[in-house]
Amino acid sequence: MKVLAILYHGYAAAEAESRLLGTVENKLGLEEWLTSQGHEFIVSSSKEGPDSDFQKHIVDAEVLITTPFHPGYLTRDLIEKAKNLKICVTAGVGSDHIDLNAAVDHKIQVLEVSGSNVVSVAEHVIMSILLLVRNFVPAHEMIERGDWQVSDIARNAFDLEGKIVGTIGAGRIGYRVLQRLVPFDTKELLYYDYAPLPAAAAEKVKARRVEDLKEFVSQCDVITVNCPLHEGTRGLVNGDLLSHFKDGAWLVNTARGAICDKDAVAKALKSGKLSGYSGDVWNVQPAPKDHVWRTMKNHLGGGNGMVPHYSGTTLDAQARYALGTRNILENYFTNKPQDPQNIIVGLGKYETKAYGQR
Amino acid sequence: MKVLAILYHGYAAAEAESRLLGTVENKLGLEEWLTSQGHEFIVSSSKEGPDSDFQKHIVDAEVLITTPFHPGYLTRDLIEKAKNLKICVTAGVGSDHIDLNAAVDHKIQVLEVSGSNVVSVAEHVIMSILLLVRNFVPAHEMIERGDWQVSDIARNAFDLEGKIVGTIGAGRIGYRVLQRLVPFDTKELLYYDYAPLPAAAAEKVKARRVEDLKEFVSQCDVITVNCPLHEGTRGLVNGDLLSHFKDGAWLVNTARGAICDKDAVAKALKSGKLSGYSGDVWNVQPAPKDHVWRTMKNHLGGGNGMVPHYSGTTLDAQARYALGTRNILENYFTNKPQDPQNIIVGLGKYETKAYGQR
Repeated sequence: MKVLAILYHGYAAAEAESRLLGTVENKLGLEEWLTSQGHEFIVSSSKEGPDSDFQKHIVDAEVLITTPFHPGYLTRDLIEKAKNLKICVTAGVGSDHIDLNAAVDHKIQVLEVSGSNVVSVAEHVIMSILLLVRNFVPAHEMIERGDWQVSDIARNAFDLEGKIVGTIGAGRIGYRVLQRLVPFDTKELLYYDYAPLPAAAAEKVKARRVEDLKEFVSQCDVITVNCPLHEGTRGLVNGDLLSHFKDGAWLVNTARGAICDKDAVAKALKSGKLSGYSGDVWNVQPAPKDHVWRTMKNHLGGGNGMVPHYSGTTLDAQARYALGTRNILENYFTNKPQDPQNIIVGLGKYETKAYGQR
Repeated sequence: MKVLAILYHGYAAAEAESRLLGTVENKLGLEEWLTSQGHEFIVSSSKEGPDSDFQKHIVDAEVLITTPFHPGYLTRDLIEKAKNLKICVTAGVGSDHIDLNAAVDHKIQVLEVSGSNVVSVAEHVIMSILLLVRNFVPAHEMIERGDWQVSDIARNAFDLEGKIVGTIGAGRIGYRVLQRLVPFDTKELLYYDYAPLPAAAAEKVKARRVEDLKEFVSQCDVITVNCPLHEGTRGLVNGDLLSHFKDGAWLVNTARGAICDKDAVAKALKSGKLSGYSGDVWNVQPAPKDHVWRTMKNHLGGGNGMVPHYSGTTLDAQARYALGTRNILENYFTNKPQDPQNIIVGLGKYETKAYGQR
């Protein structure tokens, strides 16, 4: 059986750090296990264009492994060429780089390692909220360049205490964000989601649901995006929605870059509508060198907390999603049932509502 | 009555942002109130050397107001020259820049605005822990300079979940740090303090006390310093104590710079004994341009989360400590009793154990 994995290159880092499992070099720790069973295992980072390893090998692979960090974009076109493809496994969480409707049509299963990095991402969200609200980046840059001017930092530094924080999406990640916010004595925790949280879960974090999105954003000092990318959420945070934000709000998006309109966000930061924007997800990954989110700033020269897509690929997370990927493959090879929470697309149908199923 | 305040300059920032109360320009919002009562109110940032405003005016001031952010160092020498001085008010928390023993000897009261910025600092600690453990700074710098290499960041990025976190000092700030850590599902929360927490308080945060400092540090993945600076804590984290740390531990110090040995910390970061060091306090403030903590790094080029001293001077905190300073002065002018929690040195004696009283 041919197994194709599209991973990111680790180069020297992967040689030096064997826990960097999600790299081309360390192959999710699956190589010996797969090849000893007689499977062919192709691993590459080459993913763009007709000459890429991805497009060359997808035509006869039965299993495709990808990650959200260096996504192999499996379009309907490619799915139609992938005559042997039976199962796509996302080593991590978030399968929007796969055309899920086309996977349904072609009876290709899509699975994720659902729990593998939800905590990692939730932690990144809390860090990002704090570093925007507290104005960390300009403060650190000031120290590095040899300056010291407390007032230039303090003038745009606030406490999280007493602010109103809301999450778009209160699923596995969004709910963990709410849990971690509870002891910060925010003024209120809000959430926007297609379904209400179970009453006990909402009570535990004392979060209030706001059903109308514009009303929701207009009440928040801090907004964090924790929903999947699908047809219903692409470009959700656009110029129109941003106009309903509080002036000077902070926005954190570790979900998917394309949920926010790139240029509208940059414009809102420049105008002061947003005080800060932070996250690790981009509309295209790797982000082009001239991507406006790399260097956009607020009018005080701060408010940018962007990083490459790594919040869900800490070494702790890599251990979990490498193991989870192996478990999914083992179930597939031996015809055992998959863990239901990992199934995005089953045989010819969606098994989750998370991706806005047809 | 002559009131002398040593504050930091805000320049254009203070002109533009009236909430920057703790600046020379905005004078803690006290000017009209003080002068309308006929008091002389001298405000300056000039604090070093015999020609400074601090040393010129201290000789006949009755009230001295200082902050930890731009500390006017009130030595025994200066106290002996300050013949009229009756009361020192720290606008903020932390009065180690005042020779407290000398203040006791000369019956000069020392007061702080105790609650004013404990939450601000505790939030900064949580942010700093997360940004070190998750390797934020090198990730952001990578984005700014136009690169994208996830593995170079991920190789030294971890989750806080499952780690052991300990605080040196479980007082007003340290305890708030523990409270905020509870939902992060750390493996364990530890504390080191001269006294145990009340049983109910310890149970609430499920923190275990370790009585021996070397044993304490040897168990922690992350250590945060939240104790006052005094004779017993100056240089507490030195080369010897660092040798008992776990290899690759992370250290966060927002208490006082001089609690950690400057060169021992830099050396430990370089050697890999520490993976990261972060904080906003320095042995001298403003820190000299060539202070090693500005640019020290771990062997992977990261692990530095330093900022100027501002964690307790967010705009939210400034509102609280400006008001608190006014309340202390009002009590003093009208001979009303002070809030006991604000009194560090009363008339000729310590009123707190926090500064390691004689």
